[in-house]
Amino acid sequence: SSNDTNPDSFHRGEDMRWQEPLDRLYHRHIGPSPEETMDMAELIGVASIDELVDMTVPAHLRTQTDIEFPPTLGERALLEEMKRLGDKNQVFRSFLGLGYHDNQLPPVIQRAILENPGWYTQYTPYQAEIAQGRLESLFNFQTMICELTGLGISNASLLDEPTAAAEAMGMCFAHFRKKKTVFLVDENTHTHTLSLLRTRAKPLGIEVRVQPMSDFDLAATDVCGAFVQYPGANGAIADVSPTIARAKEHGVLTVCASDPLALTLLEAPGTLGFDICVGSAQRFGVPMGYGGPHAGFIAATSDWVRKLPGRIVGQTLDADGNPAYRLALQTREQHIRRSKAVSNICTAQALLANVSSMYAVYHGPQGLSEIANRVHHYSSALAGIATAVGHTLESEMFFDTVAIKLNGISADAFVAMAAEHEMNVFKADEHTIRVAFDETVTEADLATLAELLAGTPIDATAASPHNRIETSTHARSTEFLTQEVFNTYHSETEMMRYCKKLENKDISLVHSPIPLGSCTMKLNSAVEMQAVTNPQFGNIHPFAPESQAQGYLEMFDEFKKMVCDIAGYDDMSLHPNSGAQGELAGLMTIRRYHDSRGDTKRNVCLIPVSAHGTNPASAVMAGMVPVDVKVDPDGTINLHDFSTKLEKHKDTLAAMMVTYPSTFGVFEEDISMYCDMVHDNGGQVYLDGANMNAQVGLVRPGHIGADVSHFNLHKTFCIPHGGGGPGQGPIGVKSQLSPFLPEQTRGTADEWDISGAPHGSSLVTTISWAYCRLMGKDGLTDASKFAILNANYMMARLAPHFKIRFTGTNNFCAHEFIIDCNEFKASTGIEAGDIAKRLQDYGLHAPTVSWPLTNALMIEPTESESKPALDMYCDALVSIRNEIREIEQGKAMVGDNVITNAPHPMSRVIADDWHKSYTRTQAAYPLEWLRGKQMWPTVARVNDVYGDKNLVTSIPPRS
Amino acid sequence: SSNDTNPDSFHRGEDMRWQEPLDRLYHRHIGPSPEETMDMAELIGVASIDELVDMTVPAHLRTQTDIEFPPTLGERALLEEMKRLGDKNQVFRSFLGLGYHDNQLPPVIQRAILENPGWYTQYTPYQAEIAQGRLESLFNFQTMICELTGLGISNASLLDEPTAAAEAMGMCFAHFRKKKTVFLVDENTHTHTLSLLRTRAKPLGIEVRVQPMSDFDLAATDVCGAFVQYPGANGAIADVSPTIARAKEHGVLTVCASDPLALTLLEAPGTLGFDICVGSAQRFGVPMGYGGPHAGFIAATSDWVRKLPGRIVGQTLDADGNPAYRLALQTREQHIRRSKAVSNICTAQALLANVSSMYAVYHGPQGLSEIANRVHHYSSALAGIATAVGHTLESEMFFDTVAIKLNGISADAFVAMAAEHEMNVFKADEHTIRVAFDETVTEADLATLAELLAGTPIDATAASPHNRIETSTHARSTEFLTQEVFNTYHSETEMMRYCKKLENKDISLVHSPIPLGSCTMKLNSAVEMQAVTNPQFGNIHPFAPESQAQGYLEMFDEFKKMVCDIAGYDDMSLHPNSGAQGELAGLMTIRRYHDSRGDTKRNVCLIPVSAHGTNPASAVMAGMVPVDVKVDPDGTINLHDFSTKLEKHKDTLAAMMVTYPSTFGVFEEDISMYCDMVHDNGGQVYLDGANMNAQVGLVRPGHIGADVSHFNLHKTFCIPHGGGGPGQGPIGVKSQLSPFLPEQTRGTADEWDISGAPHGSSLVTTISWAYCRLMGKDGLTDASKFAILNANYMMARLAPHFKIRFTGTNNFCAHEFIIDCNEFKASTGIEAGDIAKRLQDYGLHAPTVSWPLTNALMIEPTESESKPALDMYCDALVSIRNEIREIEQGKAMVGDNVITNAPHPMSRVIADDWHKSYTRTQAAYPLEWLRGKQMWPTVARVNDVYGDKNLVTSIPPRS
Ligand SMILES: Cc1ncc(COP(=O)(O)O)c(C=O)c1O
Ligand SMILES: Cc1ncc(COP(=O)(O)O)c(C=O)c1O
Ligand SMILES: O=C([O-])O
Repeated sequence: SSNDTNPDSFHRGEDMRWQEPLDRLYHRHIGPSPEETMDMAELIGVASIDELVDMTVPAHLRTQTDIEFPPTLGERALLEEMKRLGDKNQVFRSFLGLGYHDNQLPPVIQRAILENPGWYTQYTPYQAEIAQGRLESLFNFQTMICELTGLGISNASLLDEPTAAAEAMGMCFAHFRKKKTVFLVDENTHTHTLSLLRTRAKPLGIEVRVQPMSDFDLAATDVCGAFVQYPGANGAIADVSPTIARAKEHGVLTVCASDPLALTLLEAPGTLGFDICVGSAQRFGVPMGYGGPHAGFIAATSDWVRKLPGRIVGQTLDADGNPAYRLALQTREQHIRRSKAVSNICTAQALLANVSSMYAVYHGPQGLSEIANRVHHYSSALAGIATAVGHTLESEMFFDTVAIKLNGISADAFVAMAAEHEMNVFKADEHTIRVAFDETVTEADLATLAELLAGTPIDATAASPHNRIETSTHARSTEFLTQEVFNTYHSETEMMRYCKKLENKDISLVHSPIPLGSCTMKLNSAVEMQAVTNPQFGNIHPFAPESQAQGYLEMFDEFKKMVCDIAGYDDMSLHPNSGAQGELAGLMTIRRYHDSRGDTKRNVCLIPVSAHGTNPASAVMAGMVPVDVKVDPDGTINLHDFSTKLEKHKDTLAAMMVTYPSTFGVFEEDISMYCDMVHDNGGQVYLDGANMNAQVGLVRPGHIGADVSHFNLHKTFCIPHGGGGPGQGPIGVKSQLSPFLPEQTRGTADEWDISGAPHGSSLVTTISWAYCRLMGKDGLTDASKFAILNANYMMARLAPHFKIRFTGTNNFCAHEFIIDCNEFKASTGIEAGDIAKRLQDYGLHAPTVSWPLTNALMIEPTESESKPALDMYCDALVSIRNEIREIEQGKAMVGDNVITNAPHPMSRVIADDWHKSYTRTQAAYPLEWLRGKQMWPTVARVNDVYGDKNLVTSIPPRS
Repeated sequence: SSNDTNPDSFHRGEDMRWQEPLDRLYHRHIGPSPEETMDMAELIGVASIDELVDMTVPAHLRTQTDIEFPPTLGERALLEEMKRLGDKNQVFRSFLGLGYHDNQLPPVIQRAILENPGWYTQYTPYQAEIAQGRLESLFNFQTMICELTGLGISNASLLDEPTAAAEAMGMCFAHFRKKKTVFLVDENTHTHTLSLLRTRAKPLGIEVRVQPMSDFDLAATDVCGAFVQYPGANGAIADVSPTIARAKEHGVLTVCASDPLALTLLEAPGTLGFDICVGSAQRFGVPMGYGGPHAGFIAATSDWVRKLPGRIVGQTLDADGNPAYRLALQTREQHIRRSKAVSNICTAQALLANVSSMYAVYHGPQGLSEIANRVHHYSSALAGIATAVGHTLESEMFFDTVAIKLNGISADAFVAMAAEHEMNVFKADEHTIRVAFDETVTEADLATLAELLAGTPIDATAASPHNRIETSTHARSTEFLTQEVFNTYHSETEMMRYCKKLENKDISLVHSPIPLGSCTMKLNSAVEMQAVTNPQFGNIHPFAPESQAQGYLEMFDEFKKMVCDIAGYDDMSLHPNSGAQGELAGLMTIRRYHDSRGDTKRNVCLIPVSAHGTNPASAVMAGMVPVDVKVDPDGTINLHDFSTKLEKHKDTLAAMMVTYPSTFGVFEEDISMYCDMVHDNGGQVYLDGANMNAQVGLVRPGHIGADVSHFNLHKTFCIPHGGGGPGQGPIGVKSQLSPFLPEQTRGTADEWDISGAPHGSSLVTTISWAYCRLMGKDGLTDASKFAILNANYMMARLAPHFKIRFTGTNNFCAHEFIIDCNEFKASTGIEAGDIAKRLQDYGLHAPTVSWPLTNALMIEPTESESKPALDMYCDALVSIRNEIREIEQGKAMVGDNVITNAPHPMSRVIADDWHKSYTRTQAAYPLEWLRGKQMWPTVARVNDVYGDKNLVTSIPPRS
């Protein structure tokens, strides 16, 4: 085994040459100091961190060989390398459109949210009481989408527009109990949306029929839905009313994909009669980022609420009767419904949804309309110029995109001329180009394009554009965004304060460890984040020519190689923009592999019952039949059940999905045996890489038997969670699967897509690349070792007080461990969820509650927490244990005690009346160091039942 | 008059061409919306904002002519222009040294502090209870300086090293009651420090005698102090002990200028016996920024504490007996002692001091030593190479700077060769260069320099440097930075949380209006701040060749022209890095003007008693005799007293200093008459531009009679206050004074300097430039109009409740107004200061307390506050007025009431015991909207008297 970490020297200095830079992230990323490491090892009862790792990670699975890795960079050198790569990208003026638009992120929002760890290091707001700020902002997002689309219900974001379209297709399909298998799609739809629809239709047995909408056979009994892009891919605004009318007549569901900026001028889809509307909020302040991340959205008429995929924020009351937000109707979701869930979506795009809703808050309805009008004036002017100089328009009615049939010049020639002016325009066919304007368009842009169209300089300002939409039947008749929040914070001072007010309601990593098992809430360092708001990375359109993205491509190559080497894989796709999308991509890759061998019957996927809910949900979406495999009480796979199921399904076995270390936080000794058994029976192994943070440098999934894994870059590789996204979930594969990866087939007949953009959420992949280059391979290995150390340290400290479940060999855990809370229930009424709430009173964020075991807490401290932080957290848990003991011993009352009543917002402990069976001090300051605490729950315990019964998921319009 | 603001159209849109960008800062910077503006005008009783302005600003003083102004830019266009100018600067590797060093600002500190409005929009911590965070950080700064210098007392920053040296000289001079007039200065001192010492010595009648320190005649009875730079300007570390010993023998005070990084290796100045040590903390994480801002420091033996210039943070107890920080010993300072103050310093460098102390917190003593050692290894290696290839060293003992007498090549040729490699080295004389390394030095740098020295590529890594200091008598023997705070927050996570913890204790503009009269706490917009952390601006050395600073110079030219035009001046110097420095510069410019005409007797400066304390203090430093002029009860100059004094001093009259609008917030009608009278008697008029925010676009100082003004860019022109600095105080002058401006004389025999760097704090001037370009001339005018509107609106709302003092013509105020609190004292015991404390319970920052009138509040809301914010603030004040009424009416107790006991920290209202004569709710939530308040004072009222009696101004070393 590779005992190469010397806890005395892992911090800077000792074994370094004097020349080397000292600004290594390495010892900043890892929490414990060398001295602390020694103390922790001692408490755990091992001589060193390496002894611990040796005793924890099964020796026969340990990585034996070394890998080549690019040199480790100091922070300054990393920034220089980032600049070099950024400068290798070429930022052209982008008039490509296609659902991605340059825009102006208001600097106040950039600083206050996108660059602010108080926002971006938040976790998904499952702990509602210390997440009211982001819940309010997501509620604003839902309101904004409802208002713009004219529909009653919106979720809190999806991954992008094409996947949202696919989700909508899934809703239509499910609505008719999967009996109606045809989904009609208007041909004037973005190619990447079509590709996604086809990809996702295939495993479900849906036929995507692409036609001009006028040809839609809506009377056919096998049609579940009809999909129209509005405005269309070529910019044209068609009259959708006849289609909708006919669909309604025949009970066919109607879906539109639309553009939120266009909708400030165009009649709302809901008003037109669409059932569902999807789209992207990217142009509301989010950089194009060579494809993402940005918030996809889905909205539907109110009756859809229990069928809508993704997270939905709802309003409810708290225990004191005050209004409070929380995630609503969670029973739709994969973490509860598993294979029966509406969708596999888990990580979404919360941070970007917040940016976009804040953009709307900042501009308000009038500001948004002005932006839209200006864009529309510009495109009208361009259209006017084009026709004046002899070209023809593909459509007279458009919003921002003008499709021009060129006269006397080929599209290629025009595109090339534009490129000389550092402008990208879209070639639609040999003689047609499209120009899509956005809010950044300038007079100089128009003048250049006018000159190119005319073949000679002409006076572009002479164009007197009129607002074509305003005077048309397409003009919006309905008001929108009348709510106070969209009409209040229009000065920068007000905006800054609003963002801060919300931020300060929420616990993020800037205040507290967030030791969420399976979520790896580690440091997202400031240096790693710097490309995110660098225009050289931000302002690249995903469909810009690759020659303009050379910096990105070089970075991706390097990054893929690093992660493949770390994980023992041969190839990688960056396409999936979340872990769940990675699962879907991986399983579909496996299917394509089987299919390619003529093995077309293989559709069974064995999944241990302890698996994350996304696993079975993804299997279903990949057209597989998930088969549960039992686990032993220690969380390991039940060999007997596994063998039985394997035997039973061996002819149709497609894959096994397994999480390693297990979702119980244990390194199973026998993992390779199971992999072998699957292989022997013709299946492939999908190893869920969510727990990769326990393995980097220690175990290589590709070497222990797995064929494909996703890596949650937002866990192991330091992309911040952003309060529920962004994520990025690339998949690594062994060589046999490589030809079947999504992007390998791009442009072929077998084209298939997992996300809209060629490389997924490129902008955030820069973070993970930076992390790897800053840590180096030894640093990355140490990150895993310290993740294991920190978990075992906490476990050792808590073991005397709590029942620990499922440790591995030698009784150590991997990078996370589970506390069983069942013992308290009978005598005290206290459950894991109550302890989670009580932690809020200690200013702390709870661990994962009741997953993978009910009434348990799963703790994953990560390597980034220091010993004092871990001790503080343990002290709090021990103190809560003592509070439970007070109840057990009858010193505190069952039903009226500091835990059952938790959390205690400030308003309660400051109230003039105090009628609890304990003191204010016991409620608010149970430990002395809490006296100065800054984070308080801002509401009392939220009432989920009330909220789900009395659903409110957006702010009502101002009447 | 120019009634050009249409309140309906000032917001975007109506009068704009459709082509124009919509991302104008204009309507984001100004708080009130058009609708709000109408409502406010109505309440004030005017038909429009223009009517108000017409009635407020005397018509005969109003600007009549238009100016040329560069085009107004949208936010995106501004960023593009900023990038263009930044790219015009050339960032070379900087080995110039001279007290300015490249360094690595830890990205976590960049994001958490330098780019975070929660830190940079703070005001000077006069309201200690809501400023404990930054007070703690400044206390850390003082501790850091004490520890590194080995001296007992440090202040909380000065403006830069040269001015700190001048302050130290002033201390020596004052110590001997100005009787000993010679100040000895070792010749091995930075040229710009020498220049500053000479500049500041001249008006005081001090002779600066520059010699080798071995020649110092310390026995001479007229010597007050001896100054040594350690290490010297050429890098040499001399043996200072003999000089110190002789000085002590003769009772001469000793001052050293030193380098905090060097001091981690070198014996501490205090240990060596120096009385005073000055220097710059720039290299602790602050960008060079073409000269500033960064924190100068001054430390001295403990007995100096009552004589040290600048703000000093001290620890004390609060009303509940808990430890608390606050500004100590304010009676030394100009705002109390005026002409008898220790110095004129007011705005200092708090933000940069905080960055530097956080840098030390982040690295700790070991990390700092490692950085220093690495630098020293590099310089030793270079020295070894230089001698190995036949050059000679000027000194064998150095820290980071190697002075090399070149063999076979001239210094010019070497400098030119280095420039080809984009490296700046310093030419000391025809045959000597100096190379100063810093923490960013790389192996590649060394290799390049080695090759240049050798004339051929050589193996630089072969150099085996030894630590020369360590084995020398100069090695530091004393421990430093043993305090817990410097040994705890070394992981990024811990650092991020520490910064956040402190931030969240303090009120800044992100939470509350800070309507400080005379301080103009307006929006510092995110877009304006972007150059500050852009390396193309940050990494330019102030003494880099001008060819490398073309972007800066273009920007400065444009900026000077804009401000000169606005203010009616002909020329401008950017040299002064604070308002007070501007006063000093302006008065010295006037003196030089008089001198140039042979008018050498003119030394009297008439100053109204209502003037800011810096005015008389600056006059004294300029060698003038300040003569008080009485003011009438309404704050205007008393004509009789003025005429009498004028008559009396007419032969020696140098200048009048006057603030306009007056410090009472009134546009005096007769200002031009006073100016004429001064001119008629041979004097010049200094118009203190602190209140320029009431005048931009409305009144031009240069047209109403003034000859020179400083502009506090940190007020009118949007540089953030940073919790007490940075500032920037350029002066505009009429043409007759132009030849006498500081930089005009640079390089001549008459060279004189106001700050160390050629253009003052260049990096922050970028903010003011951006503000002007974003607002345009109409926008800037509107800013002043809305500043006047907002002030008059608040005054109108408060007038029914409080006694308003000193309104102008038509009973309007300018941009600020004064509430007289004397009426409450007798019956309730309440004073203005109590109201200020009570405002903290409302989550608000107090107005200016007891200046310019005692027991009064001066309110300046600025244009950036919206009507709701103003209303909230007024509601709070009215509510406090009602609380006072309760006492007046006997319903609340004198001595035990919500105001006298204010502020109420959370710990108090949550305590189990409550024995006040009012309820917790009355204490904490006097108004309903306070229920969710986020900002609380973190301590009870601080006890100034206790703290000044029991002085603690740094953290004791850990024993
Ligand atoms: C074990 C496991 N698998 C899969 C996922 C899904 O990843 P994502 O949220 O990125 O879709 C998670 C997310 O928490 C997980 O913990
Ligand atoms: C009227 C007036 N003059 C001068 C000054 C001094 O300016 P500075 O603090 O930049 O030195 C101030 C600062 O508040 C002021 O209000
Ligand atoms: O290169 C990509 O895998 O997207």
